[in-house]
Amino acid sequence: MQRIASQAYRLPQNQKLLLQECQIRYGILRRATFNSTMQNIDTLINARWVIPIEPDGVTLEHHSVAVHDGKIVELLASTDAAKRYRAAETIHLAQHAVIPGLINAHTHVAMSLFRGLADDLLLMDWLQKHIWPAEAKWVNPDFVRDGTELAMAEMLKSGVSCFNDMYFFPDVTARAAQDAGMRACVGLIMIDFPSAWAQNNDEYFRKGLKLHDELRNSDLVSTAFAPHAPYTVSDAPLEKIRTYADELDIPIHMHVHETAHEVEGSLKQYGKRPLARLADLGLLTPRLLAVHMTQLLADEIATLAKAGVNVLHCPSSNLKIASGFCPVHTLAQAGVNVAIGTDGAASNNNLDMLEETHIAALLAKGVSHDATAVPARLALRMATLNGAKALGLDTRVGSLTAGKAADITAIDLSDISSQPVFDAISQIIYSVSRDQVSDVWVNGKRLLASRRLTTLDESALWAKAQEWRSKIKT
Amino acid sequence: MQRIASQAYRLPQNQKLLLQECQIRYGILRRATFNSTMQNIDTLINARWVIPIEPDGVTLEHHSVAVHDGKIVELLASTDAAKRYRAAETIHLAQHAVIPGLINAHTHVAMSLFRGLADDLLLMDWLQKHIWPAEAKWVNPDFVRDGTELAMAEMLKSGVSCFNDMYFFPDVTARAAQDAGMRACVGLIMIDFPSAWAQNNDEYFRKGLKLHDELRNSDLVSTAFAPHAPYTVSDAPLEKIRTYADELDIPIHMHVHETAHEVEGSLKQYGKRPLARLADLGLLTPRLLAVHMTQLLADEIATLAKAGVNVLHCPSSNLKIASGFCPVHTLAQAGVNVAIGTDGAASNNNLDMLEETHIAALLAKGVSHDATAVPARLALRMATLNGAKALGLDTRVGSLTAGKAADITAIDLSDISSQPVFDAISQIIYSVSRDQVSDVWVNGKRLLASRRLTTLDESALWAKAQEWRSKIKT
Repeated sequence: MQRIASQAYRLPQNQKLLLQECQIRYGILRRATFNSTMQNIDTLINARWVIPIEPDGVTLEHHSVAVHDGKIVELLASTDAAKRYRAAETIHLAQHAVIPGLINAHTHVAMSLFRGLADDLLLMDWLQKHIWPAEAKWVNPDFVRDGTELAMAEMLKSGVSCFNDMYFFPDVTARAAQDAGMRACVGLIMIDFPSAWAQNNDEYFRKGLKLHDELRNSDLVSTAFAPHAPYTVSDAPLEKIRTYADELDIPIHMHVHETAHEVEGSLKQYGKRPLARLADLGLLTPRLLAVHMTQLLADEIATLAKAGVNVLHCPSSNLKIASGFCPVHTLAQAGVNVAIGTDGAASNNNLDMLEETHIAALLAKGVSHDATAVPARLALRMATLNGAKALGLDTRVGSLTAGKAADITAIDLSDISSQPVFDAISQIIYSVSRDQVSDVWVNGKRLLASRRLTTLDESALWAKAQEWRSKIKT
Repeated sequence: MQRIASQAYRLPQNQKLLLQECQIRYGILRRATFNSTMQNIDTLINARWVIPIEPDGVTLEHHSVAVHDGKIVELLASTDAAKRYRAAETIHLAQHAVIPGLINAHTHVAMSLFRGLADDLLLMDWLQKHIWPAEAKWVNPDFVRDGTELAMAEMLKSGVSCFNDMYFFPDVTARAAQDAGMRACVGLIMIDFPSAWAQNNDEYFRKGLKLHDELRNSDLVSTAFAPHAPYTVSDAPLEKIRTYADELDIPIHMHVHETAHEVEGSLKQYGKRPLARLADLGLLTPRLLAVHMTQLLADEIATLAKAGVNVLHCPSSNLKIASGFCPVHTLAQAGVNVAIGTDGAASNNNLDMLEETHIAALLAKGVSHDATAVPARLALRMATLNGAKALGLDTRVGSLTAGKAADITAIDLSDISSQPVFDAISQIIYSVSRDQVSDVWVNGKRLLASRRLTTLDESALWAKAQEWRSKIKT
């Protein structure tokens, strides 16, 4: 049912035009009358504001999202929805904005157990003296399971429905996501060093392919190759990954141009910048999800745009580690698909995509010296549809579109700190805090219901975090 | 009672040394026994963590703050406090960190009613086409009263106990703060243009002095001269302000070097940069609170440090309006007192000092290319004691010190999104969100009690915000 019937309540002229575009695009005309037969559906969400993301810039007032069998059936005016649908469950969100579930496009979820373990250090001190020793000591399947669950609790409570991960034991992360009902893309990690997960490139590769095969039919968890970074993965495994990524039709998720140090190292070792090396290896394609990208020359931006490479922007992490500034505004203007990620909690130190998107919107203006850069509606698009596009999931999620999966987040704008509401999108990007997220659905399943997690046990997770804290701290 | 008795629970060695320093500084030795007579006090706050800010970097575990007659009587181990004090009210904050109330060092509170009215615009478009017309139409005593109350509700709920304001009708803001029991410094605004508050420099001055006189004996609301900016206030009123500020012993609160445009304009009009002009006018003293300061040369930073000028840093606003970057790390290293402000909600768009301090800590690292810049404990100091120092209130507030006013904020770190807690200060700066603020006391009065405002009526404020929205939007 590709259908949206819309009633615009005092919308400005440009939004009315966008609504018309939306109606035309989906072959829709508003109907004055409805069939007398009501349609049975699972869930009807009535909201003060519905922001579908696609078409761009539209805010529908007093609209409803009809959901059945895990999918969005229709967006329509709530007055019409009451006549058309008989829902098993009707949710009234009288002061809420409903948006597509946020997509955390880059993270290392299990590292939530290292949150705040070490801060305010130079990158190499932080890695060599704190993170790597802690990882060598603690990372195992239990750690990854508990860390993933802790992170999912935090992410769901801040409106995230889907995350793109890179870490050891991706099989454990995948199972945890499936068990919690959360959407994820798990990285089939590759690094030229042994770990508790695999001893060498061959084992990383073999285990990765096995996991990909196991998840082939999952409608919740997908996979990406995840070569860690140009400076930690040599040419041979990268070439193999490129070949297999094409064959399996999955993305390649990689830290690229994170720091000036990385670029200098590549010039010394390979005589070329990392992006040039990846180009020579045939990796600059729409499959590539290049994370961080704080060191970019003008011609590199043009190359990225031409090649269709996706950039995963992690503003908090880049600031905290003082890696540099990703030129988000220039990338977006060049047509590069930019999505937003929190990075891991060890270098952020939270997984709050609302705050991350807020910071991304602010920082883009500061860095480009242009207050019109990354306006609120583009920031929200980066945190939803652009993330889906990067992961190759934009036909399934990323916007509130009939036929897509019902991955939906509701944000309560009635909080005193959000008054007055002149523009719901502005509020979401610039004013709200994560506690205003009331509900999250994934595949139509309500994983957060009025701020209560339905598939994860908060007190059990809390207790486990205390146990890990005691162990790690000693 | 200048006394702190401390019991360190598994504190690292450097914190133990700091504790000893703290004990020595205040002439304290831990006592094994206590008097059998219990002392009656108003309030005893037992907390998991107490972060006094002074001495620097100390986190006391399982400590209590004893409060009587609006003042802090003592900080001591909770086990000792139970033996020493009989409190009319005892508050158990088993999973909370207790800090000095946050000080929002620069804002325009009444502008909260313009939150999100216009975003993502060039500064002059935003001011000339949106903010100034809206101000000309709407700013009156009712607007300022309602906007101030809305802002105070938001600030208290995010841990702020004191704000430094600059706006029209400062008398109304002062009364609203007194009525709500919130600490404030109101700016005696001066601008070379007429407004609803005053028609000319003389009237601004006369009304300002009258208000200063009325507030002379207030222990809650103080005053500062508030010449708007170098480009909007001419030499004569600035000279008069300098003379009177010395005589009345109050600060001078002013936007300075906010944008490159401002500096260029000054060079054209006066043949010198704004700071040079202010120096010639004798304004570069410890009284000056210079807001924004995104355009600074190395010699200007040295001058500021030598003169003892305070810098009020507003990172969100500077980013959102693309004004430039305040060199916070360099300023702090030079010994300049840097405090943090949210600016008004029209250009932020919230008054969340926790988020603002988080962004300040992150941005300082990015801008200075140094991940060790503005570590968490310095960021927290900027948001508390440095604000108090700028306002000339550091003998009264800004740290949890016996004899100071009981301006205290409690933050609940039990939230699942704050686990695990390796370091309470790191959590407060990098991880928490404002909803974790549970309590705020000002002068010992509990203005926020378990997230409930005790002196402001949230539903009435909400209704008023809706009324203003309807009026302003039409």
